[in-house]
Amino acid sequence: MFAAPVNRLIAELARLPGIGQRTAQRLAFHILSVSDEEALALAAAIREVKETVGQCEICFNLATEATCRICQDERREPATICVVEQPSDVIPIERSGEFHGRYHVLGGALSPIDGVDPEHLHIAELLERVSGNGVREVVIATNATTTGEATALFLADSLRERAPELAVTRLASGLPVGSDLEYADEITLGRALRGRQAL
Amino acid sequence: MFAAPVNRLIAELARLPGIGQRTAQRLAFHILSVSDEEALALAAAIREVKETVGQCEICFNLATEATCRICQDERREPATICVVEQPSDVIPIERSGEFHGRYHVLGGALSPIDGVDPEHLHIAELLERVSGNGVREVVIATNATTTGEATALFLADSLRERAPELAVTRLASGLPVGSDLEYADEITLGRALRGRQAL
Repeated sequence: MFAAPVNRLIAELARLPGIGQRTAQRLAFHILSVSDEEALALAAAIREVKETVGQCEICFNLATEATCRICQDERREPATICVVEQPSDVIPIERSGEFHGRYHVLGGALSPIDGVDPEHLHIAELLERVSGNGVREVVIATNATTTGEATALFLADSLRERAPELAVTRLASGLPVGSDLEYADEITLGRALRGRQAL
Repeated sequence: MFAAPVNRLIAELARLPGIGQRTAQRLAFHILSVSDEEALALAAAIREVKETVGQCEICFNLATEATCRICQDERREPATICVVEQPSDVIPIERSGEFHGRYHVLGGALSPIDGVDPEHLHIAELLERVSGNGVREVVIATNATTTGEATALFLADSLRERAPELAVTRLASGLPVGSDLEYADEITLGRALRGRQAL
């Protein structure tokens, strides 16, 4: 139906997550309609990000140098490491303003059914980091999903075996702030009850 | 919060229609996570489309040559011209299989409030096309919106003035096929009644 270059652009856009065929078509026509300058700025931004942004060699967060800005920051406590699945998980934790330690990005969650085993994640590097480097606590902040929970349990076991004196903690489960009890699912509510705290 | 190249990519993605800040962030992290090959294929597709796809010099549809594939196609009736707002409007009409003439893409709809006046659209070129070139009918297929309707009325007047013998038609308004009467709005239903046809 379209000229070949338009079809190629639609196909590439449709590979993005959450972008279906119709949205890809709409975006392609938008890109065709804007100025060359605006369209090429997007193309250049994609190229630039792939050329300049890599992984921090300590924590595997995004980094434009050998190590990321958080690992470079002397003010961040080196004794506490927060373990997350993806680089994007660092952002909400930073926004909370409650964490002042360092991070460790696993690169995913364990999911044997999808072929993701411990050796596919940066688990060996985490065990290395906690061995005799003054690390006192590891906060496991993997997602509250089946795979995230399984990963948390696996990490807790591995960490305790490697460094028995280490504190291994997990983000609390409970009601999201501002939410109605009425709409809470029973599993969340069960966790909130089990984790109840003295006022 | 992010490295500068990541922020730039998020900003560029957020300029796309229907892509908010959060979606742009999600897409940016996706682009960071995929292979260089996949990400650069998208960047290349954007560049290619801007470098190779232009406007047909007859009908202003998308074209990779001086004229588009429809204008080049000898089998398309030259006596009927369908006027649409955007190149993307050609697709659903082609899909319907009911139109065998040529197109004319206006490049938008009249909207004085947004500064879109007749001289900003390819209206002069349309009037030129219908003048003594064997064109017998112009089907106005602008959107069924306020601006699309206003554009249709303006075109009808201009076309009649330029070529009094020309048939000027408009796509029928009525109930979408497969829809429930119960959910039809009163304006659509009014149009469907006024446009009722003998069975």
